[in-house]
Amino acid sequence: MPEQSDFPSKWDILDAAARIAPFARRTPVLTSSTFDKTCEAEVFFKCENFQKVGAFKFRGAINTVLLLKEDRDVKAVATHSSGNHAQALALAAKMNGLPAYIVMPENAPEVKKNAVRDYGAEIIYCKPTLQAREEELAKVVKSTGAVFVPPFDDNRIISGQATAALELMEDVSDLDLIIAPVGGRGLLSGTALAATYFSNIIQVVAGEPEMANDAFLSFQQKKRVTLSSPKSIADGLLTSLSEKTFAIISAYVTDIFTVSEAEISAAMKMVWERMKIIVEPSSAVAVAALLKNPSYFKGKRVGVILTGGNVDFDNLKF
Amino acid sequence: MPEQSDFPSKWDILDAAARIAPFARRTPVLTSSTFDKTCEAEVFFKCENFQKVGAFKFRGAINTVLLLKEDRDVKAVATHSSGNHAQALALAAKMNGLPAYIVMPENAPEVKKNAVRDYGAEIIYCKPTLQAREEELAKVVKSTGAVFVPPFDDNRIISGQATAALELMEDVSDLDLIIAPVGGRGLLSGTALAATYFSNIIQVVAGEPEMANDAFLSFQQKKRVTLSSPKSIADGLLTSLSEKTFAIISAYVTDIFTVSEAEISAAMKMVWERMKIIVEPSSAVAVAALLKNPSYFKGKRVGVILTGGNVDFDNLKF
Repeated sequence: MPEQSDFPSKWDILDAAARIAPFARRTPVLTSSTFDKTCEAEVFFKCENFQKVGAFKFRGAINTVLLLKEDRDVKAVATHSSGNHAQALALAAKMNGLPAYIVMPENAPEVKKNAVRDYGAEIIYCKPTLQAREEELAKVVKSTGAVFVPPFDDNRIISGQATAALELMEDVSDLDLIIAPVGGRGLLSGTALAATYFSNIIQVVAGEPEMANDAFLSFQQKKRVTLSSPKSIADGLLTSLSEKTFAIISAYVTDIFTVSEAEISAAMKMVWERMKIIVEPSSAVAVAALLKNPSYFKGKRVGVILTGGNVDFDNLKF
Repeated sequence: MPEQSDFPSKWDILDAAARIAPFARRTPVLTSSTFDKTCEAEVFFKCENFQKVGAFKFRGAINTVLLLKEDRDVKAVATHSSGNHAQALALAAKMNGLPAYIVMPENAPEVKKNAVRDYGAEIIYCKPTLQAREEELAKVVKSTGAVFVPPFDDNRIISGQATAALELMEDVSDLDLIIAPVGGRGLLSGTALAATYFSNIIQVVAGEPEMANDAFLSFQQKKRVTLSSPKSIADGLLTSLSEKTFAIISAYVTDIFTVSEAEISAAMKMVWERMKIIVEPSSAVAVAALLKNPSYFKGKRVGVILTGGNVDFDNLKF
């Protein structure tokens, strides 16, 4: 089990914030009287759907690419990703004049494939399994000499993702709780570390799809559980915990709430209809967890990380 | 033809801004690197989709209700509206403890009917023609003693709608142009007056659906043209110019651009996908006009009024 000394430090997160500031967007925090009334709480939405490439993933990707450029003569970068990390790395590479090679599952949403291409990256398709992704990536790295930038299991990535929570805490005082979805876990890990380092009070909790509940099971059973074929409309949340993110989450996350597909869909519709902003299903998972547990959040000041807004409108269903 | 002295004055607009400030939301102005690059211009989006009830219409409605309360012993309010004005008046009435009676065409979007009901107003259905609306409204006013609050042809309404452009000019300096859609014309009239009163430079232009182009035709022919059955996905833009709004627009609007249904739809999708905010088709009309006339806007600082975000997701088509 990784030790605390293996986790990103307070300084890693503060350095990341300074490093990415000229490249990433400082996203706004929105409130909604509808949500406040429904939840009988004060809810603050950190809008990473307005982040570059439409998702928080840009923070970790640009932090890593900038660190790579500082450290060594990197010629290209590569990764595997079902979506937002792919776009994030493609743009981060482009901003730094580097070629990017992205291994994507064939069934990734069309809108995400197009965006990756628009950022000038080269896409290599693979079967939609982690094994296929990793094998294809190994080939790409070997043939191109690109440096692998992992989607979440990496201190540079986790430090970058942590800057979203850091900004939220800077902009909103006296938060009691922050809720985020658990996907690749880079965001949840970063959020939990940021809250631990920079607040004595804020608890971090998470939402997860029932049908992709490996973090919930791992959390309950106090050992890392992986699922063979998780399924959810929250397509950003299908990857499993790594040893490192499991260790961080076990140490610093207070609760994980699971939500059904219908609850995710209803929460997404409520955000669209009432807040007039586009969030993707993965973001709605945190909102659904908030709506599902009213007594837990009642009377609290709650930060919600809306992780992204990349939706395939051509295949939209509520 | 109404004279300039019949139009709302500079002071009417400034008074409206002060009057509605405790009730209406000061909506944010967003920018988008995608739109700036596509238009080769600096584009500033005034997000009235984030306004109370999801549309700028709340400004005029709350201004009028507050003025009614100042002036006389009003017992209830009533109006006819296909949508956003209905919601706006319903909420403005509720905030002031007044009953509201809303005559709505049977074919109004479901989401708008529900919202009106949620604000506690009573809905009276009618056939979807202006004549049917007005007849039904007359009956309601007679039977309930409610005061009619018109959707656009009224100085109190126009002054309220003008406050959106006023805020935009306060928040963004040195605008060259403001573009708004032409619907009931309260917004376009108010925008044109605000630009005229508070700037020596800003020109106001408008977008209108080709299939509901009465303002364009009126503008070209320098006389008021009405259409018998305009049709557009921009359901907020199907009403015709009044004598007063025609006079204001003739005097103070520089150009009106028409756009096709496909252009409206594409513009709406582009805003959703790239800005991650929900705008309704009527708002997209202004965006479509911007995208369709690149040489007109190139190199300019352009304000765009995104008028609303009330979309019937159950009947969504791009």
